[in-house]
Amino acid sequence: MAEGPFDWLDEHAWRRGRAGLTRTLRPRAADSPVLDLASNDYLGLTRHPRVTQGAASAALRWGAGATGSRLVTGTTALHAELEADLAAWCGAEAALVFSSGYAANMAAVTTLTGPGALLVSDAANHASLIDGCRLSRATTAVVPHADPEAVRKELAAHPGRAVVVTDGVFSVNGDLAPLRDLAGVCRRAGAGLLVDDAHGLGVVGERGTGAVAAAGLAGAPDVVTTAVLSKALGSQGGVVLGPARVIRHLVDNARTFIFDTALAPAAVGAALAALRLLREEPERPARAREVARDLSDRLAAAGLRTTVPAAAVVSVLAPSPQSAVEWAADCRARGVAVGCFRPPSVPDGLSRLRLTARADLTDDQIDRAVAVITTTAPTAP
Amino acid sequence: MAEGPFDWLDEHAWRRGRAGLTRTLRPRAADSPVLDLASNDYLGLTRHPRVTQGAASAALRWGAGATGSRLVTGTTALHAELEADLAAWCGAEAALVFSSGYAANMAAVTTLTGPGALLVSDAANHASLIDGCRLSRATTAVVPHADPEAVRKELAAHPGRAVVVTDGVFSVNGDLAPLRDLAGVCRRAGAGLLVDDAHGLGVVGERGTGAVAAAGLAGAPDVVTTAVLSKALGSQGGVVLGPARVIRHLVDNARTFIFDTALAPAAVGAALAALRLLREEPERPARAREVARDLSDRLAAAGLRTTVPAAAVVSVLAPSPQSAVEWAADCRARGVAVGCFRPPSVPDGLSRLRLTARADLTDDQIDRAVAVITTTAPTAP
Repeated sequence: MAEGPFDWLDEHAWRRGRAGLTRTLRPRAADSPVLDLASNDYLGLTRHPRVTQGAASAALRWGAGATGSRLVTGTTALHAELEADLAAWCGAEAALVFSSGYAANMAAVTTLTGPGALLVSDAANHASLIDGCRLSRATTAVVPHADPEAVRKELAAHPGRAVVVTDGVFSVNGDLAPLRDLAGVCRRAGAGLLVDDAHGLGVVGERGTGAVAAAGLAGAPDVVTTAVLSKALGSQGGVVLGPARVIRHLVDNARTFIFDTALAPAAVGAALAALRLLREEPERPARAREVARDLSDRLAAAGLRTTVPAAAVVSVLAPSPQSAVEWAADCRARGVAVGCFRPPSVPDGLSRLRLTARADLTDDQIDRAVAVITTTAPTAP
Repeated sequence: MAEGPFDWLDEHAWRRGRAGLTRTLRPRAADSPVLDLASNDYLGLTRHPRVTQGAASAALRWGAGATGSRLVTGTTALHAELEADLAAWCGAEAALVFSSGYAANMAAVTTLTGPGALLVSDAANHASLIDGCRLSRATTAVVPHADPEAVRKELAAHPGRAVVVTDGVFSVNGDLAPLRDLAGVCRRAGAGLLVDDAHGLGVVGERGTGAVAAAGLAGAPDVVTTAVLSKALGSQGGVVLGPARVIRHLVDNARTFIFDTALAPAAVGAALAALRLLREEPERPARAREVARDLSDRLAAAGLRTTVPAAAVVSVLAPSPQSAVEWAADCRARGVAVGCFRPPSVPDGLSRLRLTARADLTDDQIDRAVAVITTTAPTAP
């Protein structure tokens, strides 16, 4: 039989399998008893009755889908309300909602640069920012992680139009970008700063207004923020926040905005409900950070190598990729779900567990998590 | 004052404005009285009580968001059920759901090729397929619209791994790709065929199983289909349907799958409800096509230049970009929403109205639409 066009996928899968890199989907039940330290539901809002009711009411009133592109029939008054609310809450001039954070990042990176411009991108940036750089046709300079001096040098070497791109809180390690220093470097060089605050919004800063606001950069004319509705806000979707001229530019030019169906009303309604809750219960972000520090402190006290969390992500190093996988599996077998990251998905080559704190974790649940993670910990080789 | 990094956007906006290319968001009300011939709600399911209830129930039971990547915590049993249902309904071996059609297309195009491979792409393909080609690092050959002989020549000139990429139903003009001929050309050359059936699924074919099934290609080992949950199915999200080895490959490798939050449960629940409805009311797709043909016939009888619709999209040519814009505005002022496409958003350079039929349009509504569109029609220059 002649070779089929997709036969090569089998050998590719076999090689991944031999390297222990096969990925598996594990459908979960609605009433799973597993203790979740793996999701990004940082504020515990995804299943909050007011947030789920916000989703349900919006679907019943506005429909299950948005019916078209934002530019045709997909913009409802609910979308406009959410954008006004998000902008006000974050202290930005304007906001634009996308169907995902991936789409928001690709839109911001591609439309704010273009051929001839320079993109300076942190080596640990999220995949969607990297894909944005690849799509942009700009020149991309990848700089070492969290290194404003390296950024300064790249900008100095390229005097034209430039945008510096960074995660606000890095997704795997949970550390904070040096945003104040980066903003200073950008300003001195006349460059724009684009911050993906997916893991900071709702968690970092006094009321959870995010890493950009916490760095004193909210409303700055030269800073653009992207974020998601799918982590702390418990819903789905992405958002770009920034100067009105940037938002107008995205409406006119961003392909992942123009040629995508608008975010479904249920997701919009859920995010609006989550924002209202955050206004009424401003202690939630601080509680998420407190749980993260508590987890980190207690695991470190037990001899594990943890990061000091800046937001709600705690990274715990494992001695090897294989031991990280086994460690995560042992935790799961004891009823605790944790994230597991290893090369090539880690920017620094170090395998680790990724734990996420949630504002609604009880002290008992934290005790149980610490007990399971320390009991199952591999011994260093 | 020194120039700011985003000052250039103002001149860019000014130039677009002068060319009449400024895009505007028009938030709509939940109870808008406008007759909708602009959305992609082909089967009228977005506001069907069973579909909105499917969304609402899923949000209340599973949460407002999926909480994480499909590979970590984002796969619920509901996602698995939808994927099994979609695969069975379309006659595919397996299915994988994404947060948008844009993400699904980028995933399929990028992971099925790679450096050294050839992508042959129809000149009228959707933006997300084009972005997929750009991201793939494959060599892309753009061929004239709906031209299997041009595809054959490109494949003959490049004997290595190759994938041919096409819309199933083209979004602006509403015409059907020559899928049987393309499949024949691909088979003889050992190339894969990737069809974006966003506008065909739910509309084309006896039970609405789509353009790929209608061409006798369902379940073919060398054909991959992408589609959306956000048009005929009235929800949000995208899907890739194809051989199990292709779906496994996407799980292992597709960045817009791995690094994106999973589709929200409400969207999954709505799509499941829509599929159930389609099984119980298999006449809906035929009704949508009948409404489209009726619209097209009556507008042509009134002297307008329309396409013969293959699905639910009817294109009506306008004499100029400016007259198309004015025509659409006049329709809107008389309570009928229609799409308006003009360069650079049209592959053939021709400005037009884009009308979408819906299975739930009444005869009175069709009469009203025809009356408004013909009354407001510009006279040819």
